[in-house]
Amino acid sequence: MTFQLPTSRAEAEDLDRHDPLAAAARQFELPEGVIYLVGHSLGPPTRTAKAKLAAAQTAWSNDLVRSWNSAGWIDLAERTGDRIAALIGAGKGEVVVTDSVSVNLFKLAAAALPLARKYVLFVEEDEFPTDQYIVAGLGALSSAEVRVLPPNETGAALSAGGVFIRSVVNYRSGEVAGIAALETEARRHGALIIWDLSHATGILDMTLGASGALLATGCTYKYLNGGPGSPAFVYAARSIASKLNSPLPGWMGHAAPFAFEGAYKPKDGAARFASGTPPILSLTALDGTLDVFDGQALPELQSKARQLGAIAIARAKTLGLEVLSPQDDAKRGGHVSLRIAEGYPVVQALAARGVLADFRAPDTVRFGFSPLFLRYEQVWDAMDALADILATRSWDQPQFHARAKVT
Amino acid sequence: MTFQLPTSRAEAEDLDRHDPLAAAARQFELPEGVIYLVGHSLGPPTRTAKAKLAAAQTAWSNDLVRSWNSAGWIDLAERTGDRIAALIGAGKGEVVVTDSVSVNLFKLAAAALPLARKYVLFVEEDEFPTDQYIVAGLGALSSAEVRVLPPNETGAALSAGGVFIRSVVNYRSGEVAGIAALETEARRHGALIIWDLSHATGILDMTLGASGALLATGCTYKYLNGGPGSPAFVYAARSIASKLNSPLPGWMGHAAPFAFEGAYKPKDGAARFASGTPPILSLTALDGTLDVFDGQALPELQSKARQLGAIAIARAKTLGLEVLSPQDDAKRGGHVSLRIAEGYPVVQALAARGVLADFRAPDTVRFGFSPLFLRYEQVWDAMDALADILATRSWDQPQFHARAKVT
Repeated sequence: MTFQLPTSRAEAEDLDRHDPLAAAARQFELPEGVIYLVGHSLGPPTRTAKAKLAAAQTAWSNDLVRSWNSAGWIDLAERTGDRIAALIGAGKGEVVVTDSVSVNLFKLAAAALPLARKYVLFVEEDEFPTDQYIVAGLGALSSAEVRVLPPNETGAALSAGGVFIRSVVNYRSGEVAGIAALETEARRHGALIIWDLSHATGILDMTLGASGALLATGCTYKYLNGGPGSPAFVYAARSIASKLNSPLPGWMGHAAPFAFEGAYKPKDGAARFASGTPPILSLTALDGTLDVFDGQALPELQSKARQLGAIAIARAKTLGLEVLSPQDDAKRGGHVSLRIAEGYPVVQALAARGVLADFRAPDTVRFGFSPLFLRYEQVWDAMDALADILATRSWDQPQFHARAKVT
Repeated sequence: MTFQLPTSRAEAEDLDRHDPLAAAARQFELPEGVIYLVGHSLGPPTRTAKAKLAAAQTAWSNDLVRSWNSAGWIDLAERTGDRIAALIGAGKGEVVVTDSVSVNLFKLAAAALPLARKYVLFVEEDEFPTDQYIVAGLGALSSAEVRVLPPNETGAALSAGGVFIRSVVNYRSGEVAGIAALETEARRHGALIIWDLSHATGILDMTLGASGALLATGCTYKYLNGGPGSPAFVYAARSIASKLNSPLPGWMGHAAPFAFEGAYKPKDGAARFASGTPPILSLTALDGTLDVFDGQALPELQSKARQLGAIAIARAKTLGLEVLSPQDDAKRGGHVSLRIAEGYPVVQALAARGVLADFRAPDTVRFGFSPLFLRYEQVWDAMDALADILATRSWDQPQFHARAKVT
């Protein structure tokens, strides 16, 4: 990588001037004066998201129920899935937008269990808590044994066979899993991995198909900017999809949903994992925000995200802060976590200066680096703000300690 | 009931002049010249739905991730659930908006199985197909036996114990189940009934709690007008909720979703059936459309819906059409089904005259009577149009036979 870390704001500005992604930022609606480092939690809206949402509302008023055909709602989940497929290295028909990550993990793991060499579920103990809860819920219902692994033990445990849930990017550290190597090992031992792409989609240059990944789900409201609670997606590789039976065979996954047949005939491909009627307004916003990815090269997105992260890491180190994320760019996703003992009030003090970051108890501050709307100079300024807040202890004011319901 | 069937359009107009619900119609956005008899499939939008949706979009742009607190997104699913509770005879905390009916049937039936006297699932063979598919999917995963019953055999089968899925209003005939009587029988035999309220909510004066109903789910895009694919809801009576474990324990059902704990502690009440992050834009539209129910009396809604249905039935009989719905008003929900051999082109011919109805293969035409926006005179006019189309055979034109993907 020829990228040189900037040593001044002027150098950061220079990077912005030569940034091939700079034009994309104009598609986003972000308030003036805000440096938004929480795109890993909720991405901001784009203009086309709002335009498509307005059109969907007009269809609802004017064409009413006929909009399922006239506005294309009936296959929007599949068409949007195909757009996401292009961003994760999957093919047409291998992705469908449906439900939430929680529900999709359940469906995929339940469908995978009969195909794995052992009827056992594995999850790491530092995996995103919902992933652990879902594995426990599925285990209780299906009588599959559940084994909770120490962090980073998935690789060693694959030899046991079974079904593994694993994030591609760890939600705390931002560390990236080696998909291809783990898949090779899984295949040797009759294990199946369900990848959770929540913190990876739209930021990593993933080549799921080429890496041998067979099953995955991910959320769409982070780096894909789909809107609050926008529906998640399921990836099922063409080579395995027809062998999978969803435990939640809803009518939208049926090959002929309006034939109202007693017997279930699943759709081809990933679409069999659709279940009930999708939330069209939320799905439409997602379809709209995906427009900003058209014509973008994933390697460029990934590269810029890591450059922004590298700037934050370098400056955090000069402040003496402990970096909880991999410092090797190649091993890091889109966010950087720092250990700051007074993280909660520090994040509030940053917000008061227009720098939005997030805090995870007990002492982790996360900065997310969405490459489509962030500028290099903004990251420089954010780290200036952090440095000043720490140096002046300006976080130590009562209003920065007040707790909101969610952080 | 003092209601007299109108014998002329003038008498129908007179009913409109004395209709206490007439003012509600002005809250809806419906195109001029359309008589919308498909509210049982997709309800139309209201002005407040669009206003609240606009506000949610502004929050997304301006307050971004902070909107989970500042715009109240974090507990919107529970607050909206409480509003629906008031429409079905349930109490505060007994309803949460979440997922789809498909997913909710699965969660409720899985949670009910360990509490029933027998680990067996029952569903009737003319139940909405998704309900049957879900029962089959759950049976395969959980090893619960699945028994498919002939139509209307739930009552007789309750003595076997087990978990029963049953619609309150049959999607084809519109026939209403006797909740209280079936619940009494279920209790005697250690059976549990999961009620599917999809065609009942917002149109029937249900008193779920007083009727002894313990578990239910329903969709919100029919008579509640929540928008295309708006999320469904779960009802779990206070007396049973704490004994239920969702097989899909997602983080939004956790008592402390942001504590990121390894062990699962469900929320109190129905909220334990929340799973992943809810689709906020779709949920907001639902919250907005519910405004039109504020201050409305369910008995009046039910009564008007049945009066509109009675007009359609009486006029259909004068046309010699077979009525597939109960003719006793007390046994009928909000829609009326007629058998018309050439139903498909007839529905298209009606649509060409601005009368929207729906068709279910092979020969069923359904008219839905949403009482909040329909006028008596519109039903009169719709039946005039039907009479003319049949008398003149004007349905027999090529354009009315063309099939769309969805009808």
